[in-house]
Amino acid sequence: MRGVVMYAPGDVRVEDRPEPAILKPTDAIIRLSATCICGSDLWPYRGADKVEEPMPMGHEYAGIVEEVGSGVTSVKPGQFVVGSFFASDNTCEICRTGYQTSCVNREMLGTSGAAQSQRMRVPLADGTLVATPEVPDADLVPDFLAASDVLGTGWFAAVAAQVGPGKTVAVVGDGAVGLLGVMAAQQLGAERIIAMSRHEPRQKLALEFGATDIVTERGDAGVEQIKALTNGLGAHSVIEAVGTQESMHQAIGSTKPGGHVGYVGVTHDVTLNGDELFFSHVHLHGGPAPVRQYLPDLIDRIWNRKIRPGRVFDLELPLDDAAAGYQAMDTRQAIKVLLRP
Amino acid sequence: MRGVVMYAPGDVRVEDRPEPAILKPTDAIIRLSATCICGSDLWPYRGADKVEEPMPMGHEYAGIVEEVGSGVTSVKPGQFVVGSFFASDNTCEICRTGYQTSCVNREMLGTSGAAQSQRMRVPLADGTLVATPEVPDADLVPDFLAASDVLGTGWFAAVAAQVGPGKTVAVVGDGAVGLLGVMAAQQLGAERIIAMSRHEPRQKLALEFGATDIVTERGDAGVEQIKALTNGLGAHSVIEAVGTQESMHQAIGSTKPGGHVGYVGVTHDVTLNGDELFFSHVHLHGGPAPVRQYLPDLIDRIWNRKIRPGRVFDLELPLDDAAAGYQAMDTRQAIKVLLRP
Repeated sequence: MRGVVMYAPGDVRVEDRPEPAILKPTDAIIRLSATCICGSDLWPYRGADKVEEPMPMGHEYAGIVEEVGSGVTSVKPGQFVVGSFFASDNTCEICRTGYQTSCVNREMLGTSGAAQSQRMRVPLADGTLVATPEVPDADLVPDFLAASDVLGTGWFAAVAAQVGPGKTVAVVGDGAVGLLGVMAAQQLGAERIIAMSRHEPRQKLALEFGATDIVTERGDAGVEQIKALTNGLGAHSVIEAVGTQESMHQAIGSTKPGGHVGYVGVTHDVTLNGDELFFSHVHLHGGPAPVRQYLPDLIDRIWNRKIRPGRVFDLELPLDDAAAGYQAMDTRQAIKVLLRP
Repeated sequence: MRGVVMYAPGDVRVEDRPEPAILKPTDAIIRLSATCICGSDLWPYRGADKVEEPMPMGHEYAGIVEEVGSGVTSVKPGQFVVGSFFASDNTCEICRTGYQTSCVNREMLGTSGAAQSQRMRVPLADGTLVATPEVPDADLVPDFLAASDVLGTGWFAAVAAQVGPGKTVAVVGDGAVGLLGVMAAQQLGAERIIAMSRHEPRQKLALEFGATDIVTERGDAGVEQIKALTNGLGAHSVIEAVGTQESMHQAIGSTKPGGHVGYVGVTHDVTLNGDELFFSHVHLHGGPAPVRQYLPDLIDRIWNRKIRPGRVFDLELPLDDAAAGYQAMDTRQAIKVLLRP
């Protein structure tokens, strides 16, 4: 089968790779209906993460179950399924509290099975995969694919930031996660949603997803703008969807005392100043989003066409053209690239 | 009147100081029934904070109202009152959400009026002071004094750590705040309370306040012990009451994924590693405790003799002997020193 492998920063190839196989009774094999390139794939692509050996890529997936191990009971061949980027047993004490990405038996997809390929192995299939009511219409496939990571991650950020009715929400980051954080905030009933973006196509999508205000300034100037819009105090809830020193500083500074920051940008060389955090009086919560917790709800909203998160895919390419997809995202020509295996 | 002034690290003197006076219509003057030395007073005493000019000391107080400004309506001369170390208006948007220490009009006591003295000026008296039902029996004065800072701070840490019924709580720090964090956890219904202490008198007090387990190890060894006691996962709620790099690391490491850290130790040169925090999956909340929020409840519990937080005072001295009190706390001969003006 064909699959994407990163050899070095900037060097992405599509190759013939071994077919995945059931290794444990709890595994499933799925045939990808669609996969995509993640903002976090750009860290090694740009050299910010090391590429020590050729890395099979991809951890976002939606597709048809082809085969299941003897211990799998909740999904079966022929079903259309969505899963998260961490496989989880969904039964341990940590999973039961909704933190499946910290499951005591978790396995990172990409390591266990790379998703930018025609087929993949999913470990812990019963705990990881959620089936749709029936095989969906083709136009819904990008929406379900978005649920696998970026929608679920934006949703977790909104929940971690305690978004709810009557709240003012600020969103730091205009990538797919930030944009879907806007969508989550709208769905969770926020009164006002301030998207921070200076890119016109992303501003448009943010407004379409429910943003009520756009702030183009960044850093301390961005914080000042948020305060100017919030009676000098800051937003109740701030979604951080970048993961840099500047974005965390911007998120904490934009939050009112007693407010909540939900951070989901994969942190890169970030250190938080203890004094700044102490006197900010904010609540801070985040980390790898436990997408699995939200999948049943998100699948329901998509199945009933209440939300169309697949709108973040503004470029679609055949899997074999993955290298062009990486380049388009790296140069911000595309928000998010969908690959058809 | 007599009052404590710090001239330099290690140099604390008791001097004749000017009598405080009403400066604004919202001020009150109180005569201290008791005051005390705070763990945070040790930072400048030990040279960790600069002493740029002679500093009148003290921010913990309970006493009798002697005079009020023309705008004060909620307390009157003759009443026994307790207040927090930040004066607050208790009416602004931030106060109304319970974060009085971030009040838009807050004033730090010590700057506005130093409490280690015979009398002090309290700004924003209506928002800051809470009167007891009547002038209390003398034996309750240390308990009310404790409510002014250390009990309220331990209480906030427990609330910030989401302590409640069925929860396992770990407490990092065996100073007065940590010990009263144990008391708060017990009052808030925690099932199991693990106090981290290697000092026998403090261990005894922790057990008396409701601790169910004592862990003597620190740092990574302490984290291992907490995990060994919690099925390998960590505590639901962790109270951090020290404020150093090691104690924050210990607190975050001792918390299970999805659990809550409440941190109230005044941070000193602490930087948090973004990666460590991201993958820990903890909730982090803390800062200067909004003691004012809890005062009515704490006063009620003390008035009805349900709790005796004044037990943390294990040395009582006349105000004029304050220097000996600082020395006793610096050398850990005393947990907390009460001063009688």
